[in-house]
Amino acid sequence: MNKESPGPIELKEPIHRLSYRVIYGDTDTGGVVYYGNYLRIFEMGRTEFLRSMLKTSYRDLEHEGLILPVSEAYCRYKAPAHYDDLLELSTSLENFSKFSIRFHFLIHRFDDQRLLVRGYTVHAATDRSGRLTRLPKDFQTVLTGICSNRSRVQGFRGSGFTEKP
Amino acid sequence: MNKESPGPIELKEPIHRLSYRVIYGDTDTGGVVYYGNYLRIFEMGRTEFLRSMLKTSYRDLEHEGLILPVSEAYCRYKAPAHYDDLLELSTSLENFSKFSIRFHFLIHRFDDQRLLVRGYTVHAATDRSGRLTRLPKDFQTVLTGICSNRSRVQGFRGSGFTEKP
Amino acid sequence: MNKESPGPIELKEPIHRLSYRVIYGDTDTGGVVYYGNYLRIFEMGRTEFLRSMLKTSYRDLEHEGLILPVSEAYCRYKAPAHYDDLLELSTSLENFSKFSIRFHFLIHRFDDQRLLVRGYTVHAATDRSGRLTRLPKDFQTVLTGICSNRSRVQGFRGSGFTEKP
Amino acid sequence: MNKESPGPIELKEPIHRLSYRVIYGDTDTGGVVYYGNYLRIFEMGRTEFLRSMLKTSYRDLEHEGLILPVSEAYCRYKAPAHYDDLLELSTSLENFSKFSIRFHFLIHRFDDQRLLVRGYTVHAATDRSGRLTRLPKDFQTVLTGICSNRSRVQGFRGSGFTEKP
Repeated sequence: MNKESPGPIELKEPIHRLSYRVIYGDTDTGGVVYYGNYLRIFEMGRTEFLRSMLKTSYRDLEHEGLILPVSEAYCRYKAPAHYDDLLELSTSLENFSKFSIRFHFLIHRFDDQRLLVRGYTVHAATDRSGRLTRLPKDFQTVLTGICSNRSRVQGFRGSGFTEKP
Repeated sequence: MNKESPGPIELKEPIHRLSYRVIYGDTDTGGVVYYGNYLRIFEMGRTEFLRSMLKTSYRDLEHEGLILPVSEAYCRYKAPAHYDDLLELSTSLENFSKFSIRFHFLIHRFDDQRLLVRGYTVHAATDRSGRLTRLPKDFQTVLTGICSNRSRVQGFRGSGFTEKP
Repeated sequence: MNKESPGPIELKEPIHRLSYRVIYGDTDTGGVVYYGNYLRIFEMGRTEFLRSMLKTSYRDLEHEGLILPVSEAYCRYKAPAHYDDLLELSTSLENFSKFSIRFHFLIHRFDDQRLLVRGYTVHAATDRSGRLTRLPKDFQTVLTGICSNRSRVQGFRGSGFTEKP
Repeated sequence: MNKESPGPIELKEPIHRLSYRVIYGDTDTGGVVYYGNYLRIFEMGRTEFLRSMLKTSYRDLEHEGLILPVSEAYCRYKAPAHYDDLLELSTSLENFSKFSIRFHFLIHRFDDQRLLVRGYTVHAATDRSGRLTRLPKDFQTVLTGICSNRSRVQGFRGSGFTEKP
């Protein structure tokens, strides 16, 4: 049944974390967060990931002419979030190529640390007219830096905490 | 880069079609439909698929105690939809097991028949308390009927029109 | 308590009607349509009102440089709408000036014809840069035509059906 | 044109303030926050107002059987908010009766302190079945306390800072 689904989604260092409080407007008549609204929360995560790593904002990238439209999005719903739950979103850069970037996301409930949602988004790099374009050199340099940092903690990803063997 | 992504998403007969007009509230500052809002449109598709196939509604299934929460959702964004575009959503039942159902979705723009989005959702069968449960016998019978109908039009799927060989 | 609230909101001929089926994504954990989502439905109403009256679309108006941003919105919630309810939205042009337009909205549940929501929106006329601008002459002419038609059915507004005295 | 609109909406002490960062999902193809999405932000404000004043949460009030559905909502849009803007929402309790509560809201942009939106919501007090009910005695006592505090700072409302004469 799930043979066409992506494998397990894990995180790699560095991991960005943010808190989000569920409002009525996020929920549905099933008493849980509506499945589409997690994509709003994912957006918060990658925006703040970029802000903290790049020392600039995605808005500024756009002003310089780099657009990163979503080309793929995936969510695996493990357990429901409810109204007024405090969620913890963990975001990491999974990998990138000259033309695209992939982020991974985990959402836990703060109170019981239960894993609720795993997901990823893939982004193409385009110019303002929507044409596929290369990621700017200096942006690639920053992303390479992020990924090289991580290699030092390989094997410990997903925990959010690094350990020496 | 995409090695962990699902393969091509296709439709099988019978295919349910509905039209949806994009409103301002669906779009974002990029001038296109916000990526999370396609999951709202997918919901319309599977609800109307069930209504047309089951001669009952998902609301009635819930009243009888069967809940079908989303366990997975996937979207592949091929081209953007814009404000006031008339979209055509095609929905099909991909397969089902005793405990889950999988729907496939394609969204085309009506004007130029361009494929914009492909996606799927997987649904677990639970009772009101959220416990995994078997799909009711008569519901499984209906789903089996849908899937057996389709075998007669093998080779013609995706066209939306059945042909006798 | 309500002394600062607008008075009763009524409709005038011509009235545009459209149906909308409530989806899960519209509802909240209270089991009813989320209060902010009615503004999405109002948007559908005024867009289709304009399309049917102007024989052009709001999208085309924008392409010609006329923007009609919302300057005020009001909702009075009389009774809740639930998942899968079929709603009937009635939209009318209340009045207009050289610089603004006001629409009125009523939402009834189709099944029991109960009035659920009354509301209005006011729109400023601006150019693309956001500067207040006069409504184009030919657009004012159409609006005047709409309002003059209505005077012939004065006293019968709100019913949706005109009667000769 | 605006003769049926509410008068100026002001705040009274105590005022609750929170920050909100605009995401893509809040905006529309006009390049600004979609008019309906401000009602989501208003919800955040009154929830956090209650949490900070009551030392309990609205979720807990609901568990005890008190529901506060929105009976009216009003927004006056003065200037647009854009993607990635940091907004400052100010919330105050305007007044209350035995059966209802009224909140006032102002939204400023943090950067230039420009006033963007003014609005209010009115809430009925109901039990779980939706029947109008009296606000519980101890809840009324808290609300009275909030309102009596304010009288001491009359003349200084709107500033967000209290001063002794």
